[in-house]
Amino acid sequence: MTRHDGRTPDQLRDIRFTRNWLDHAEGSVLVEFGRTRVLCAASFTQGVPRWRKGSGKGWTTAEYAMLPRATHTRSDRESVRGRIGGRTHEISRLIGRSLRAVVDLQALGENTIQIDCDVLQADGGTRTAAITGAYVALVDAIENARAQGLIPKGKEPMTGSVCAVSVGVVAGEPVLDLDYVEDVDADTDMNVVMTGDGRFVEIQGTAEGVPFDRELLDALLDLAAEGCAELTARQAMAFGGDDMGGADSHEAGAAIDLGPPTW
Amino acid sequence: MTRHDGRTPDQLRDIRFTRNWLDHAEGSVLVEFGRTRVLCAASFTQGVPRWRKGSGKGWTTAEYAMLPRATHTRSDRESVRGRIGGRTHEISRLIGRSLRAVVDLQALGENTIQIDCDVLQADGGTRTAAITGAYVALVDAIENARAQGLIPKGKEPMTGSVCAVSVGVVAGEPVLDLDYVEDVDADTDMNVVMTGDGRFVEIQGTAEGVPFDRELLDALLDLAAEGCAELTARQAMAFGGDDMGGADSHEAGAAIDLGPPTW
Amino acid sequence: MTRHDGRTPDQLRDIRFTRNWLDHAEGSVLVEFGRTRVLCAASFTQGVPRWRKGSGKGWTTAEYAMLPRATHTRSDRESVRGRIGGRTHEISRLIGRSLRAVVDLQALGENTIQIDCDVLQADGGTRTAAITGAYVALVDAIENARAQGLIPKGKEPMTGSVCAVSVGVVAGEPVLDLDYVEDVDADTDMNVVMTGDGRFVEIQGTAEGVPFDRELLDALLDLAAEGCAELTARQAMAFGGDDMGGADSHEAGAAIDLGPPTW
Amino acid sequence: MTRHDGRTPDQLRDIRFTRNWLDHAEGSVLVEFGRTRVLCAASFTQGVPRWRKGSGKGWTTAEYAMLPRATHTRSDRESVRGRIGGRTHEISRLIGRSLRAVVDLQALGENTIQIDCDVLQADGGTRTAAITGAYVALVDAIENARAQGLIPKGKEPMTGSVCAVSVGVVAGEPVLDLDYVEDVDADTDMNVVMTGDGRFVEIQGTAEGVPFDRELLDALLDLAAEGCAELTARQAMAFGGDDMGGADSHEAGAAIDLGPPTW
Amino acid sequence: MTRHDGRTPDQLRDIRFTRNWLDHAEGSVLVEFGRTRVLCAASFTQGVPRWRKGSGKGWTTAEYAMLPRATHTRSDRESVRGRIGGRTHEISRLIGRSLRAVVDLQALGENTIQIDCDVLQADGGTRTAAITGAYVALVDAIENARAQGLIPKGKEPMTGSVCAVSVGVVAGEPVLDLDYVEDVDADTDMNVVMTGDGRFVEIQGTAEGVPFDRELLDALLDLAAEGCAELTARQAMAFGGDDMGGADSHEAGAAIDLGPPTW
Amino acid sequence: MTRHDGRTPDQLRDIRFTRNWLDHAEGSVLVEFGRTRVLCAASFTQGVPRWRKGSGKGWTTAEYAMLPRATHTRSDRESVRGRIGGRTHEISRLIGRSLRAVVDLQALGENTIQIDCDVLQADGGTRTAAITGAYVALVDAIENARAQGLIPKGKEPMTGSVCAVSVGVVAGEPVLDLDYVEDVDADTDMNVVMTGDGRFVEIQGTAEGVPFDRELLDALLDLAAEGCAELTARQAMAFGGDDMGGADSHEAGAAIDLGPPTW
Repeated sequence: MTRHDGRTPDQLRDIRFTRNWLDHAEGSVLVEFGRTRVLCAASFTQGVPRWRKGSGKGWTTAEYAMLPRATHTRSDRESVRGRIGGRTHEISRLIGRSLRAVVDLQALGENTIQIDCDVLQADGGTRTAAITGAYVALVDAIENARAQGLIPKGKEPMTGSVCAVSVGVVAGEPVLDLDYVEDVDADTDMNVVMTGDGRFVEIQGTAEGVPFDRELLDALLDLAAEGCAELTARQAMAFGGDDMGGADSHEAGAAIDLGPPTW
Repeated sequence: MTRHDGRTPDQLRDIRFTRNWLDHAEGSVLVEFGRTRVLCAASFTQGVPRWRKGSGKGWTTAEYAMLPRATHTRSDRESVRGRIGGRTHEISRLIGRSLRAVVDLQALGENTIQIDCDVLQADGGTRTAAITGAYVALVDAIENARAQGLIPKGKEPMTGSVCAVSVGVVAGEPVLDLDYVEDVDADTDMNVVMTGDGRFVEIQGTAEGVPFDRELLDALLDLAAEGCAELTARQAMAFGGDDMGGADSHEAGAAIDLGPPTW
Repeated sequence: MTRHDGRTPDQLRDIRFTRNWLDHAEGSVLVEFGRTRVLCAASFTQGVPRWRKGSGKGWTTAEYAMLPRATHTRSDRESVRGRIGGRTHEISRLIGRSLRAVVDLQALGENTIQIDCDVLQADGGTRTAAITGAYVALVDAIENARAQGLIPKGKEPMTGSVCAVSVGVVAGEPVLDLDYVEDVDADTDMNVVMTGDGRFVEIQGTAEGVPFDRELLDALLDLAAEGCAELTARQAMAFGGDDMGGADSHEAGAAIDLGPPTW
Repeated sequence: MTRHDGRTPDQLRDIRFTRNWLDHAEGSVLVEFGRTRVLCAASFTQGVPRWRKGSGKGWTTAEYAMLPRATHTRSDRESVRGRIGGRTHEISRLIGRSLRAVVDLQALGENTIQIDCDVLQADGGTRTAAITGAYVALVDAIENARAQGLIPKGKEPMTGSVCAVSVGVVAGEPVLDLDYVEDVDADTDMNVVMTGDGRFVEIQGTAEGVPFDRELLDALLDLAAEGCAELTARQAMAFGGDDMGGADSHEAGAAIDLGPPTW
Repeated sequence: MTRHDGRTPDQLRDIRFTRNWLDHAEGSVLVEFGRTRVLCAASFTQGVPRWRKGSGKGWTTAEYAMLPRATHTRSDRESVRGRIGGRTHEISRLIGRSLRAVVDLQALGENTIQIDCDVLQADGGTRTAAITGAYVALVDAIENARAQGLIPKGKEPMTGSVCAVSVGVVAGEPVLDLDYVEDVDADTDMNVVMTGDGRFVEIQGTAEGVPFDRELLDALLDLAAEGCAELTARQAMAFGGDDMGGADSHEAGAAIDLGPPTW
Repeated sequence: MTRHDGRTPDQLRDIRFTRNWLDHAEGSVLVEFGRTRVLCAASFTQGVPRWRKGSGKGWTTAEYAMLPRATHTRSDRESVRGRIGGRTHEISRLIGRSLRAVVDLQALGENTIQIDCDVLQADGGTRTAAITGAYVALVDAIENARAQGLIPKGKEPMTGSVCAVSVGVVAGEPVLDLDYVEDVDADTDMNVVMTGDGRFVEIQGTAEGVPFDRELLDALLDLAAEGCAELTARQAMAFGGDDMGGADSHEAGAAIDLGPPTW
């Protein structure tokens, strides 16, 4: 089978990370999964929300949103409608949980990191791109804070890396990293969030139409594990170079590839 | 291992369905998973939302909510806060998708079924109880509509049954159908929605704290499949008797057990 | 005249109180006026709202709401609409005022009791059932708090009992405790809240269509006074037995009838 | 007993109606009960809300609101808070019901009259002043519409007049038309809406603190009936003169006193 | 050219200030620009918003709103719609900035003045009338506070006076102080806020349709400067007399004309 | 005087237009004024809002928003707060009016163009960058629609070009195109919107602190006119080249400079 864009079933789209896309944010990355583009900004602030004060622990949370013309036809703004939709809520919560799975909140100290993932262009897989990019922005924000002495001495808040990918059944065959056209046609759609060492953080699988059996589930999980291993490698490459400005940092960094910073 | 309430790891809580708990709704059931009590009401109306008119297809959707004092300490009402929280949105969408997986919307004709799942008392597993009960209310609403000639002749809108259960890792061991106390302590928490014939409709697994590996995932899925098979049997028993009024219809029905009505 | 359900003009519907219907709430009752079913939950918390701190006085308030399918046809949820309707506001305020009429807030100390009245099924008279049941839940919550030493020593926060009933003119004749069918047809509709010793707490009378004269008003007030006396007796009977679980506690308690607990 | 402002117990405050206070509205009046000032504007529009189309009947409704600095200390605007409070809702509904009691919606034809009652200054009794003034604005709007041929020929939409007054117990004595200072001190507070021929439209009585007995209730109703008779006369006088612009039309009209226009 | 109401191009409408129109507010004025009527109420409170505490500086802000039937056809209430419109926001902010331009917030001490400008009737120029009236109410509130010893000794919070007027191009000619009919037809519309000594505080000019050139802009600014000089004189006259109650204080005060109080 | 970033008082920041930054939108540009980056997307849809149907005229409107971490410290999302702030409303309306000043809505036919201006990074002058970029996106959307035959034959909806710039007084001297640091310090702040042929569309000047006189106003207007002439030239250059993808199209286009497309 050839996919509509020429990829093999187990092939990711072009993945690009442009770190430090923003000048003000403590960490930021423009992540691209093919034509899906998500701007991830990590804001580090000292202190924690009221309900966590005095706990000695930090907090990390995320908000996901989409620009109105990220999509093929324009959507109304949630700010104009005056309420956040269920899908937005759901994805924001997913990103937050995924990141917290690799953050030692005790080691973070009473600091808060807020990750904003704004989809500038959507072509399928926005939530998985967001998680994969948010991790990169998060690491940069922590390194930035460490450089300013805001992380408790000798502590490492990151316990590993995290990334995510979608898998699904298109035209009867399991495929990796679906774009919008494939997503619309998929019978089963699953988003898998994994750590860099190959364990699961989240699995969300949905039968669109026909329920699926255990065998298919296993095949999809295998495919997702492969995809996440590749994304983990790409994240590591992204940390190999530090320059910015339209440059494609993962190519620039490819020759160096230092791996994720400290653990 | 013995669980805090004396159950074995693969044992469900007491499951009760009281059908026709409401006098007005086309279908209704008070479903209990131990101390978790959810009132499921299915409202059948002729016609479909504007965006679906003329399609020849029906629509089925769900709304989940919790009474303020369903929980150990009182929560504010979402109506008073003026907005629905992310968790509520997420669960409503999950229930709707799960039900649509076993409804042939073409066979339903241009009719709408709205399922309301209101948690009267919460003790863990409210979303899985809601899905399991919602199916029962849905079937009753369809039978009710069929009796009034509102279902296209010779059509069967239900393509199967659906139920859901939670599984998780408590004190290092996979267990089935967690109550609140277990849920708070669980390392991994997974909600699995399955059809009566043992296929998957939804899998939502979350590592709370420690990411999980494939082996554990497989064990949890096995446990969930067992639990869902049992719940499917209980749903069938619930359809064995029709009386109402505080009576426990699944006990009443146990002797008869006609199985789900027509397929 | 015979009423459509066979009652005499001055006859209440079947009144049932199922105390402790909930496991978590400090006080709770499922109150039924015929097919009208309201779940009343009283939440006792130490402390008072900010505006009352340091006053030495407690606070008691109520919220009323209706499940979407409590009614003959489904209503939209107020949480989904994003705002509470005028009717809901009005009834919540009425219940709160009615309860405060029999609570000595000084004797309550700086504690708060929040009463939630959720209509599970509506068949007319939901607000009067709510008030009548809320009183029972309130008393249980206070006794529960007293048992835990949370009520100032030697103090009795309850100064009496309170209940409510509707009266109206149907087919030209004054009748007591209208159900939905009667309510729709009534020319005049009045809700009367009274204390156990026969005094008025609230009178809300509305001419639907034809204004009413003083003579009719007097007849309606007489009828309401009779009805409230009967409801007061039923409340007292409800306190005679403590068991729960679908049992009809007022029947169980009928033989004992200890009257309201301490005053 | 002398009241703090020198009135006798059964004496109204100075009552003034300034008709046509607005240039655009089909009917308008600035009504004053002492220092309480309410601007009532009646907007007549052809057509009815969607749910009433084709019924042959019109619709009349009301909205009540208070300017932020109508009160002794400034209140936040409900538009800024983003939601309407319970009290506002409750009073708006009361005004609407009161007016509909004297409107024959069939005779009105498929036309809508919306009454806005905006409290410019509050000194007790704002809802009773609003009802009393709204009636005057309503009559003017109907006469205005009739002059333009918008009222079905030979039809009289008004079936009578309506007004309202408050009564209460201050320092142990029943008094009429309480101002703010008295309202704060009152033990019992009752708002009574009556037609010009002395029948009741609404009675809303509340025990603030001490429940009240039947004897007191009767005394309050007597007092309210007297007050409403007086207000009815004042409304009639207001229709005796038509000029505007700061002039006190009830004085101007006193010599003429044509009574309410046509019935 | 003669304007539709007989004015010359550089002529203001009749300007009236009725000071102390409200009994409770620290400062209030009913300002009229022809048929445009705005009730301005200034509320003085000790203390400042949280973000300003401890700064030693006061705060002054404004809110603008329109009654639903201020306009030719009724508009929905923003409180009912649940959100404030862009135009309302914009004008509220403009009024607040304009007033702060003539207030020395340091000299005000940690006190807050909130100005509410409610349009009772709209006939064009509501924002300019609001600013012009708000200044008068503001001065009265400060004098009132000074009399109670709430203004720091020897301090003068007012640094000058402020007023505003609209100018525009109607039928090809620049005109001053447009009413509604002219406003609808105007090609260019400009609102100019000036101090009493002839300097600019705000200029907001909009080409409705045809962009305008520098020459026309200069002509409009000249016209606005003349209009503001006249309005400044009228404000000064308004402070010449203190009585209230329907009286037109600027006429009453014309003979005396003490000018603005203290600077 | 040298400005903090080395510019002369009448010098713009680096201006860049990256056209077609988005794949789905009918027109789009990433516009940069120094570090201020605004993504402008123009959505062309057939048909007009209901209130305009049958008029034969089109409609053009705009929405402005800021990503939460566009600024130095993170701001809450307006979608999360549930309401749009006054500043956002104000700027959205300004952009819409500015664009409509150069669109012949009759020539557009019954089509709608919605422009979304999302600030990805803010460093002062976001509204002027938004207007300047929105014009470019708008032209591209119209050309795109024309290519598909959606613009009435022989019609030219664009009547000219439009751009905007800020001017202000910093350290006593008038300067052009203020960045954030200058904006904070500015005494007077003015945004000027002009057409390509040098006429005014909008002037919004605000005295921050000290009111300004006519002489200063004239100097600021001169400076703004110069700046807009330069921006008009840059817009024309942007249309000289069509490629995309991080490339700086205005540099690429500089050699060619075809000017704005058709008028």
